[in-house]
Amino acid sequence: MTTKKTIGIGLLGLGTVGTGVWKLLEQNGDLLKERAGVSLEIKRVCVRDPKKKREIQVPENLISINPDDILNDPGVDIVVELMGGIEPAGKILIEAIRRGKHVVTANKALIADRGEKLFKAAREKGVSFGFEASVAGGIPIIKAIREGFIANRIQEIYGIINGTANFILTEMADRGGDFSTVLKQAQKEGFAEQDPSFDVKGIDASQKLSILISLCYGVTPPREGMYVEGIDRVTGLDIEFARKLGYVIKLLAISKDHAGAVEARVHPTMVPLHHPLADVKGVFNAIYLKGDAVGETMFFGRGAGMMPTASAVVSDIAQIAQEVSRGYAAPAVLPVMKTPTIQPIEELVTPYYFRFSVVDRPGVLAQIAKHLGDHDISIANVYQQERDAGAKVPIVVMTHDAHERNVRQSVEKIDKLESVLDRTMVIRVERFGK
Amino acid sequence: MTTKKTIGIGLLGLGTVGTGVWKLLEQNGDLLKERAGVSLEIKRVCVRDPKKKREIQVPENLISINPDDILNDPGVDIVVELMGGIEPAGKILIEAIRRGKHVVTANKALIADRGEKLFKAAREKGVSFGFEASVAGGIPIIKAIREGFIANRIQEIYGIINGTANFILTEMADRGGDFSTVLKQAQKEGFAEQDPSFDVKGIDASQKLSILISLCYGVTPPREGMYVEGIDRVTGLDIEFARKLGYVIKLLAISKDHAGAVEARVHPTMVPLHHPLADVKGVFNAIYLKGDAVGETMFFGRGAGMMPTASAVVSDIAQIAQEVSRGYAAPAVLPVMKTPTIQPIEELVTPYYFRFSVVDRPGVLAQIAKHLGDHDISIANVYQQERDAGAKVPIVVMTHDAHERNVRQSVEKIDKLESVLDRTMVIRVERFGK
Repeated sequence: MTTKKTIGIGLLGLGTVGTGVWKLLEQNGDLLKERAGVSLEIKRVCVRDPKKKREIQVPENLISINPDDILNDPGVDIVVELMGGIEPAGKILIEAIRRGKHVVTANKALIADRGEKLFKAAREKGVSFGFEASVAGGIPIIKAIREGFIANRIQEIYGIINGTANFILTEMADRGGDFSTVLKQAQKEGFAEQDPSFDVKGIDASQKLSILISLCYGVTPPREGMYVEGIDRVTGLDIEFARKLGYVIKLLAISKDHAGAVEARVHPTMVPLHHPLADVKGVFNAIYLKGDAVGETMFFGRGAGMMPTASAVVSDIAQIAQEVSRGYAAPAVLPVMKTPTIQPIEELVTPYYFRFSVVDRPGVLAQIAKHLGDHDISIANVYQQERDAGAKVPIVVMTHDAHERNVRQSVEKIDKLESVLDRTMVIRVERFGK
Repeated sequence: MTTKKTIGIGLLGLGTVGTGVWKLLEQNGDLLKERAGVSLEIKRVCVRDPKKKREIQVPENLISINPDDILNDPGVDIVVELMGGIEPAGKILIEAIRRGKHVVTANKALIADRGEKLFKAAREKGVSFGFEASVAGGIPIIKAIREGFIANRIQEIYGIINGTANFILTEMADRGGDFSTVLKQAQKEGFAEQDPSFDVKGIDASQKLSILISLCYGVTPPREGMYVEGIDRVTGLDIEFARKLGYVIKLLAISKDHAGAVEARVHPTMVPLHHPLADVKGVFNAIYLKGDAVGETMFFGRGAGMMPTASAVVSDIAQIAQEVSRGYAAPAVLPVMKTPTIQPIEELVTPYYFRFSVVDRPGVLAQIAKHLGDHDISIANVYQQERDAGAKVPIVVMTHDAHERNVRQSVEKIDKLESVLDRTMVIRVERFGK
């Protein structure tokens, strides 16, 4: 069998992550060669604007503006897609696979949207497909699930997988301030995008959860039916009450594999203070999994950033390069893909936190309690601060297990009461399989 | 190329972990076949006592008391060693390798002691060598280091890697009680061995640290020169003071890669309360790593137990089985092994916690402070409770960065003072690279 000693790489995109990959191969190339037993060589780099000032020195003869130059280069064994966006990235990867090239991508939107098609194409062509960097940046969670936990049925997934949202919630908890103030500060400091909706509305987290669900349960990445709610309605008051009640509010991506249906939801969540996820602060990410053999595990680290993401991309490149150089006859088989049934959010049963904004006068709590009782929602705790009669005051209620459908119906009625002044804040409480 | 669809396994040992492996292959065998694309079949099981009552049903024709029956069986592709102990396990594995069989082991003592020889034999023969279960049970930390972080220079390692010691320290902190009381309770509940010294003296943790050092820095597992101190001198008073000062006491395995020398030590450590390792409770393990690209990461999970450990063993088996079935030309290259230079503990520079037991009379603190000052040890905080004159009272001192050599010399002198009644408690404070 012939073995190759140098593996050629074609880089599509030279933004933050692409620059990180270039730097990391330069900085730790010798180490990689020693460990992987093979040399990695960037043969071509495709960029949009070859004239752009960059912090790295790329020889001119490697640079191209046409992806075809990478696809046509017989010296390119692995195509590394770091352009982002669904098209043309998707088409280029399909074409790369068609030509027998192995592919690596950090593109979560692409995997969440086209994963099934891409995995199928790679499987049929017999090429490898790496996407470690698409979820939780530098944390090797995809490898852990696919290889480390290969003998487990993963039953529960809990992820803090959006650094921007976690940064904002951490700042609100540690320094005080309402969502919009902290968001503005985060934008100024570069921790949030100018258009932050992708992160704070939970969309980014839902794409990553979709990929995790696919890997953990061996299903196609779900695209519809997932409940997604952002952190933009969380107030400093909620965070304060949460702490008093023994919780911290996190944007959690949650999935549980029930017989027949999969729970899949992203929303602000009350996490008990003693739980390992409660201490994941700032831009850090963490994924907490429960498997039938391994039990509870958690993986923590930087979910974004130039070098952490490059670390994940290069780990994929190195693995494929080792396989290619040692003549692996076929790539890792991807699990048989079934289409999952997503459980509608209305069927969720969990405890709830309610913050009602009411006018401070006798009988209001009784009214609210009656509506809850009528909908079979049993109260565990009530917290009401006395203030001036007639003023707007919060009433906080923690429930026992309740049905989301009942919660929605009762809150809709409560919000119509004359003594209820603002829309009620509802936050789901997580008990982690207990 | 011929590919094999069924991979034969020879199991050496049917204790807790061996039983777990049998059960897991039975329970999730179909899943494994689907994911790995290959069937795993236990061909032979070697036990000491074939008559022993077991919770699993092993067909009689598979059972043998002679390891040679496994080594001689051409149907056995992978030898899985779960006997424990250094010999005869070591000799059997060398012989298995010599005969071209792949090997998997959960035996940390063996890897720490004979790793170099075993790795070399496997490399020369071209067989795979899996030892995921040897550190931190079900946590796929070895895979994460060798593959997930292949592009990183790991610079710092911090591990809570002994469940028994962590359980005892957690109980002391959460429920109170001194070391010996809690240890007895732990023994009664099955969380500590009847002879607990291997765990509470830090020996087990030092073997695991030795393996982590080997993998992270690409060196042979260090066997000598590591500083190892157990938790048996930690008192409830220390835990109480720690909390007041913003710390929790953990048995930490620590290593930092300095240019030229490697810090390697296991001892009770003051961990800041806000650090992710501070919340690792009970029998859970966690490993916190810092890499030059990925930054800080942490892996958390069950470090022992039948099914978590079996999860790790079977992940090794599945990986090798996939390689064998797909005709991998050569096994993963193990890093070039250099012998590390271990930095003597006397050269450590870190902050320290001292608890002096003194007679409560004027001038004692001044005497102690003078000795510390004479040895260039600068005090950050002093905590002294007033009690009855003449009684034994604790004085707690937190220092700025100090040299261990100076600490030892000064404490030796202080312990000879007439007003100092017990041996001074010294606990190193960890600031995690800050």
